[in-house]
Amino acid sequence: MVRRRSGSGAILGLLWLVSIMPPQASAQLPRRQPTPNDTLISPQVLPDRRVTFRIYAPKASEVSVAGDWLGTSAPVKLERDKQGVWSASVGPLTPDFYSYAFTVDGVRTVDPKNPVVKPGTTSLASMFFLPGKEAEFQDNKNVPHGDIRKVWFQSTTRDTQRRMHIYTPRGYDSSKESYPVLYLLHGGGDEDSGWSTIGRAGFILDNLLAEKKAKPMLVVMPDGSFPRPANPPPRPGTPEADKAIAAAQERFANELVKDIIPYVEKNYRVPANAENRALAGLSMGGGQTLAAVTSYPDRFAYVGVWSAGIFGKAADYEKRNAAFLDNADRVNQVVKLFSISVGDKDFLFARAKGLSELLTRHGIKNELHVSGGGHTWINWRQYLHDLAPLLFR
Amino acid sequence: MVRRRSGSGAILGLLWLVSIMPPQASAQLPRRQPTPNDTLISPQVLPDRRVTFRIYAPKASEVSVAGDWLGTSAPVKLERDKQGVWSASVGPLTPDFYSYAFTVDGVRTVDPKNPVVKPGTTSLASMFFLPGKEAEFQDNKNVPHGDIRKVWFQSTTRDTQRRMHIYTPRGYDSSKESYPVLYLLHGGGDEDSGWSTIGRAGFILDNLLAEKKAKPMLVVMPDGSFPRPANPPPRPGTPEADKAIAAAQERFANELVKDIIPYVEKNYRVPANAENRALAGLSMGGGQTLAAVTSYPDRFAYVGVWSAGIFGKAADYEKRNAAFLDNADRVNQVVKLFSISVGDKDFLFARAKGLSELLTRHGIKNELHVSGGGHTWINWRQYLHDLAPLLFR
Repeated sequence: MVRRRSGSGAILGLLWLVSIMPPQASAQLPRRQPTPNDTLISPQVLPDRRVTFRIYAPKASEVSVAGDWLGTSAPVKLERDKQGVWSASVGPLTPDFYSYAFTVDGVRTVDPKNPVVKPGTTSLASMFFLPGKEAEFQDNKNVPHGDIRKVWFQSTTRDTQRRMHIYTPRGYDSSKESYPVLYLLHGGGDEDSGWSTIGRAGFILDNLLAEKKAKPMLVVMPDGSFPRPANPPPRPGTPEADKAIAAAQERFANELVKDIIPYVEKNYRVPANAENRALAGLSMGGGQTLAAVTSYPDRFAYVGVWSAGIFGKAADYEKRNAAFLDNADRVNQVVKLFSISVGDKDFLFARAKGLSELLTRHGIKNELHVSGGGHTWINWRQYLHDLAPLLFR
Repeated sequence: MVRRRSGSGAILGLLWLVSIMPPQASAQLPRRQPTPNDTLISPQVLPDRRVTFRIYAPKASEVSVAGDWLGTSAPVKLERDKQGVWSASVGPLTPDFYSYAFTVDGVRTVDPKNPVVKPGTTSLASMFFLPGKEAEFQDNKNVPHGDIRKVWFQSTTRDTQRRMHIYTPRGYDSSKESYPVLYLLHGGGDEDSGWSTIGRAGFILDNLLAEKKAKPMLVVMPDGSFPRPANPPPRPGTPEADKAIAAAQERFANELVKDIIPYVEKNYRVPANAENRALAGLSMGGGQTLAAVTSYPDRFAYVGVWSAGIFGKAADYEKRNAAFLDNADRVNQVVKLFSISVGDKDFLFARAKGLSELLTRHGIKNELHVSGGGHTWINWRQYLHDLAPLLFR
């Protein structure tokens, strides 16, 4: 219990600074002069739902900000003040959870003043929450929260330690019952933390469960990312690149079925049958979902393919996947819900629609849901919110 | 299962790029020209234990890198090549886990090419691991791993949702036994993720448990950070600043005892007694540990104060904390181990030593451990590795 004492003021003052600075930086504190950066706030969410971005970059000649509220619009240019602080305001925006990054003289950078970041395999983005009615479903409310666990396991498929995130709903620990599992896959460039940072999966489930709109379930969010290549990836469009993609899809489908699911079913109280397994994913994870269901059609009763679809000519796809497509009866018996969701401005819209049409042509029951918007987390959080209540009924 | 097809190469190539880029960026991919940044690698850990840092900043006039291997040495200047890529090599370094950040024209920035970051309350740092014998105790090995859970709860002390990280050792889920708990506090500027990112607490415990050098325990890592002030903090050394620090210390000690510990003891299989509780913390968290033990001397059987000590004149401190200091018998009966650790180059060295001397003068049993090094995570990971085997024996 430290109280104010005459004489110890300087030390206590230093301690206050230590308390709001990284320990490494604090030791060097007294050496440098104050700058406008010390008290700069960014981002600032204003009461009228506009948002102000600021960055101190006195020597820069051009600064812009891009974020997922922009859709395909151009980045917003910031203006410089006399002290070297650049700023811009955007909005009003719809209440939601947004990601963004600055570009300073051509170099992409996260907001140095915002510790809330989305990690990716090769990049970072900054994030902020704009509260309001439209965002309530993903807000961090005073409801019972599940735990989100970081879990490390040895992958025999990849011969290395791999990580996943697992959501266990409140009550799982004290209960003796088994829980069904949603396997939830992220997209390219993200990793297994994606669904619980920018994807807000934990809060979405917490809120659905508090309102009794979904059945209690585990949500397993594995790492589906490619290992960072030692060399630059093959040039897009070359046979080498195509081969690498196909190999990666197959490897992940195998890792899911041979390592991830067995690990979960061994270490958590979950029934080991298709009825109690759902699988959904976005973009690259949508492709992985499709690959896993095509190779292992008897494992998942609920399937969600989001912002993804078929590639190449339909006829070629049909030939390659005949064993799956020509067994509609068997597939329909296991898969109770095959849901395909995509935004009307998504650059993969036609391919998602093509997948739905192809499945229908082969008699495989499926639903196509077309939302507004593009290839963004703004949609994927909504898709999770829409799908979860339908599972395990 | 996507295979190579003539005609679909361009799409598959685009997908490969999508797979290694953030989804938001990928839609705009075809528009921009390649730069040296696209294939740049940073940091690069070389076989001789040197490390090369690189950043693409063609318009910058000065770039440096600072990290916790430097101690109090000056930041290292990077050199620019013709294409605008700045680079510098450091080392050879001792195998360890390091944090660093660039400064580009006076603006601190994380490494844009390194997704491994340490989040703080107001800042970020980049991190890398240099494997080797000295770092084995904290390496991610093929041993059974515990889960690290992100846990949200309603704090009555602060009237808001608060988060903590909880390590549960492998076997906790399937066991029916109770586990003792180490409450482990971070320092100023960090938050509750600190001990499982840069602190590597999970790996340190996993490795100790695999070698049977520690008793299985839960490690609860709460968020002890100050809420980000709406206004700039009071000027260091002013009575307002002193008051704010004292109030914050007391608030956290209360939150720990009234919210965090009850939540843990209600929701996890842990015995609710002093014998099975340990408390340790670094820097600000060391101060909080001391404050909690002073206010609640009957709650913790094991205490670790790291890189922290007493403030102000010893005589003043003694007067304020007489109820604690003058009851050595009672304290010694509960506290089996009162361990104080500090580096000989730590700017708080004298204060940690002062705490040990003061406790001894009052008959409170304690141990002072002086290591090399300063006020850095390089020491705090070692302190955890040294303390954990002594707990709950």
